[in-house]
Amino acid sequence: MRDLKSKILSAVRDDLEEIDGALAEHLAPHFDLARDVAGHILFSGGKRLRPLLMVLSARLCGYAGGKAATFSIIFEYLHAATLLHDDLVDEAGLRRGKPVANSVWDNATAVLTGDFLLARSLSIAADTENIAVIRTIARITEMMSQGEIQQLNRKGDTALTEEDYMEVIKCKTAVLFQGACLTGALVADRNAQDQQFLSDYGYNLGLAFQMADDLLDYTLDSEALGKSVGADLREGKLTLPVIHALGNTGSKDRRKMEEIIQNPDFSIADFKTLIKFMKTYDGIRYTRKTAERYVEKAKSCLADFKSSDTKETLCNIADYALARKL
Amino acid sequence: MRDLKSKILSAVRDDLEEIDGALAEHLAPHFDLARDVAGHILFSGGKRLRPLLMVLSARLCGYAGGKAATFSIIFEYLHAATLLHDDLVDEAGLRRGKPVANSVWDNATAVLTGDFLLARSLSIAADTENIAVIRTIARITEMMSQGEIQQLNRKGDTALTEEDYMEVIKCKTAVLFQGACLTGALVADRNAQDQQFLSDYGYNLGLAFQMADDLLDYTLDSEALGKSVGADLREGKLTLPVIHALGNTGSKDRRKMEEIIQNPDFSIADFKTLIKFMKTYDGIRYTRKTAERYVEKAKSCLADFKSSDTKETLCNIADYALARKL
Repeated sequence: MRDLKSKILSAVRDDLEEIDGALAEHLAPHFDLARDVAGHILFSGGKRLRPLLMVLSARLCGYAGGKAATFSIIFEYLHAATLLHDDLVDEAGLRRGKPVANSVWDNATAVLTGDFLLARSLSIAADTENIAVIRTIARITEMMSQGEIQQLNRKGDTALTEEDYMEVIKCKTAVLFQGACLTGALVADRNAQDQQFLSDYGYNLGLAFQMADDLLDYTLDSEALGKSVGADLREGKLTLPVIHALGNTGSKDRRKMEEIIQNPDFSIADFKTLIKFMKTYDGIRYTRKTAERYVEKAKSCLADFKSSDTKETLCNIADYALARKL
Repeated sequence: MRDLKSKILSAVRDDLEEIDGALAEHLAPHFDLARDVAGHILFSGGKRLRPLLMVLSARLCGYAGGKAATFSIIFEYLHAATLLHDDLVDEAGLRRGKPVANSVWDNATAVLTGDFLLARSLSIAADTENIAVIRTIARITEMMSQGEIQQLNRKGDTALTEEDYMEVIKCKTAVLFQGACLTGALVADRNAQDQQFLSDYGYNLGLAFQMADDLLDYTLDSEALGKSVGADLREGKLTLPVIHALGNTGSKDRRKMEEIIQNPDFSIADFKTLIKFMKTYDGIRYTRKTAERYVEKAKSCLADFKSSDTKETLCNIADYALARKL
């Protein structure tokens, strides 16, 4: 896995540098507070995965307009805006090992800075002068807010099905990945078929990525994750590993699992018991298998593109998404 | 004044009906919770002033595309999104006499529904397929969030100058009015000069409207206003009536005023004392005079358009903005 990571990183080193440059540059003319709060979330070790996907998709489609990095930051700004609003919604304490913005500043500042970043991403989208790109951004924003509302609405609901879960992660994660890749094809003015291929690549990758992320809550220690273990559950977020295990239990174990899940102050011992149930009832393995399927689907969407370093990197990213967050 | 109001209302009756229809229709396909929360703010007696300005501006510019009402709801959605986020920022209790959304639901739902409305407005903007309109929406959103951050940042700051105040109300109110009127000219494909005229009309009207609104906090009783009197001050918002009066006081009275202003739990007696100071030191009269100047400026921007019912209604709206909120 180390190999895969270093292969990806060396392939995209220049891109990441350009993306980081564009991110900083587009915040610079804005006044201090907005820049500071936005910077707090933008420059705290984010992986730039979404802008990177757009840049690579554009390159795969032969884009040569020289503005890929600039346009790509739309997707990092959108992502950061969502994080700012989510941290408030989730009442989380840490994000990437740093205190969340709404605890450093306050809720109001976090909300307004999120709005500001959303507006910035819209401005840059307008700079593409491409209505299809703008429609894509509008759709992403709409779906993401709906997904988050949905998730909030079903907080702690142990009746959540795998289908409900898929709908939530589609809205809150996959459409952004999808939009980033599709935008790459759109700015390159590629035909509808190739737009669809890249859109599907991003969509399936996004689903796999979110599943892998949701698995981390049950497989990694707090330090590696940068937020407290069991955080999803404490926030009442039921993810696939739990949903699948719940569906496989008999009524007695199900009741025990539900008791732990529905108590936001569950102990470490409770959490360990839960993980044991999740292993027994196949939640973890099933989630990993499902994510693997989406990774394969994602890669197969690129089949029609001729071999290139860029295509290889996109496939590597898909593989790595599952192994560990990039 | 009653006359002016009924004149305006009878002139725009059909438009308001069409706007209300479009507002409801564009929320309908969306799922329950988002629709309910959005509906709470959208259908609680809003004046539809912003969409109306767009519709009238489009008509003044000869727009005949039949989509004015549909496009106009961009500005009501934007406005409602801002209200949802502001109510959270302000920790206000009432809005238009109804409990604010974040007390009926919760902060998270209010924030996410605001995001959803912002996204809806962007989608409709994309439907115009007019990059200039989309740029206008992006700019409005950016300026509004910056204005709100600015206002929050200067909360309770008695060193706020008239210039600072103008900057805040420009961002938080005038750019939206300006954008609505400009969009009317843009969808009508009117020349740059006329775009500028309508943009300036909206901008000046927005400034006057906000000043009139800020005056209400010191001149109206709670029932008429639909929120508690002195609310701006309790939220630490220093508006022109206070700023101007503060600038005119000697050091002794200034200290007394500052004491009241800086105590968020000031009593009714304190508030009455403050109002006396504001009258003595010309804060209220000065604000009214300044607002009148902007109303005149707004009307003068329409001078080059030939006489019509629409032009008359736009002038009436400008006059009425000052007399009382429409």
